Amino acid sequence: MISRDSKIPFYYQLYEILRGKIVRGEWEPGDMLPTETDLLEQYEVSRSTVRQALDMLVSEGQITRQRGRGSFVAHPTVEQGLSRIISFTEDMRQRGMEPHTEVLSKELVPATAEIATRLKIEAGEELARLERLRLADDEPLSIEEAYLVHKLCPGVLDQDYALYPLRETLSQKYGIRLVYARQNIRAITASKKMANALGIKFAAPLLYIERISFSDKDIPVEFIRFFHRGDRYVLYNELRD
Amino acid sequence: MISRDSKIPFYYQLYEILRGKIVRGEWEPGDMLPTETDLLEQYEVSRSTVRQALDMLVSEGQITRQRGRGSFVAHPTVEQGLSRIISFTEDMRQRGMEPHTEVLSKELVPATAEIATRLKIEAGEELARLERLRLADDEPLSIEEAYLVHKLCPGVLDQDYALYPLRETLSQKYGIRLVYARQNIRAITASKKMANALGIKFAAPLLYIERISFSDKDIPVEFIRFFHRGDRYVLYNELRD
Repeated sequence: MISRDSKIPFYYQLYEILRGKIVRGEWEPGDMLPTETDLLEQYEVSRSTVRQALDMLVSEGQITRQRGRGSFVAHPTVEQGLSRIISFTEDMRQRGMEPHTEVLSKELVPATAEIATRLKIEAGEELARLERLRLADDEPLSIEEAYLVHKLCPGVLDQDYALYPLRETLSQKYGIRLVYARQNIRAITASKKMANALGIKFAAPLLYIERISFSDKDIPVEFIRFFHRGDRYVLYNELRD
Repeated sequence: MISRDSKIPFYYQLYEILRGKIVRGEWEPGDMLPTETDLLEQYEVSRSTVRQALDMLVSEGQITRQRGRGSFVAHPTVEQGLSRIISFTEDMRQRGMEPHTEVLSKELVPATAEIATRLKIEAGEELARLERLRLADDEPLSIEEAYLVHKLCPGVLDQDYALYPLRETLSQKYGIRLVYARQNIRAITASKKMANALGIKFAAPLLYIERISFSDKDIPVEFIRFFHRGDRYVLYNELRD
């Protein structure tokens, strides 16, 4: 219950109580939360306190609000380790989720100055661009926009990447093993296009990752932009002193 | 210039051109971008194409828009490595930025069930809660909300943490060396309170990190929530096969 003489604001106490029910699994993904009126009666707080607590849960992706219907416990997030290169398919199978990939577009494009610098090629050189939507248990999770140096893997776009992992084709058909990658991670908001493709709202939070992958010969082969849903995707890592 | 027979949409080409100018430093932080009208005339595209390109730059935090004034190149981001525990002060000094800390609040609070589980203590045990605002070159960058197991470091809140790093006090006064940490990283949007404290807009993107730090005796000592500005803060890491 809410402690009246704690220095912790009521809305924060209520937030912790509701979050606890979600984290402990008392409320499950898809469950509807009690209404605002139920909550303010049960916890003896004001409507604005209830709203503040719910706002915090929404902004953390713990619940979603559906206009005119109520608030619902969000679906669980996918936690991704940060130390190893692992394919989406492998990764989802390890978690017991069913992976699914849709190819949104594939085409040959000239390298822009920016991507050329990162891949250490000349601007205008040919890149194979492959844009894929990744789904886990039929829920959209991420968009991956990959740019490959085409001269290193000519014809790479001929494969059907809804069915085959790109890394497998690179290794089996072109003898390119991606052994090392560097990446930057930031939080951005979804453009309209991204939001539509991912089934989320415009300006919802995304984990945005830019990754350069290098071959065993230390050649940059691939530049990828990952757009991961903020409400479903969590990165995990460990630090040492 | 925009290629008329490329399969890449015009807005995406324009986005790449403008982004290139920022990334290469042709346009510098704080510089005003040409107006929409200038851009549509210069690149011979429609106003909606210009707007789509600018929207992408805004959502990635490359530019900011100020109503009635125009668009400006955003200030550079702070890139943070992901493998080592490093103090904010050290970290900023290494980048040549002036670190500054404001203590927003400090108090003793009972552990909620959720935090107790993570710190392997009983719910209700005493925690020292320390909320700090971190600034780099006088710009707000992050909020850090730390919870320490108070019985391990009684009186820890007596120190002035605007001046002294918490890790130094833990090590010198209590003999606790934090040697290992585990963390989760996700993208969320700013609550009103966070947005105000960080000087950003409501619902702007934040990198949200939850970290548990362990002592050299493998005891969980500290739980921290970091709220990093999405437009200023970038994580960096390397991956292996």
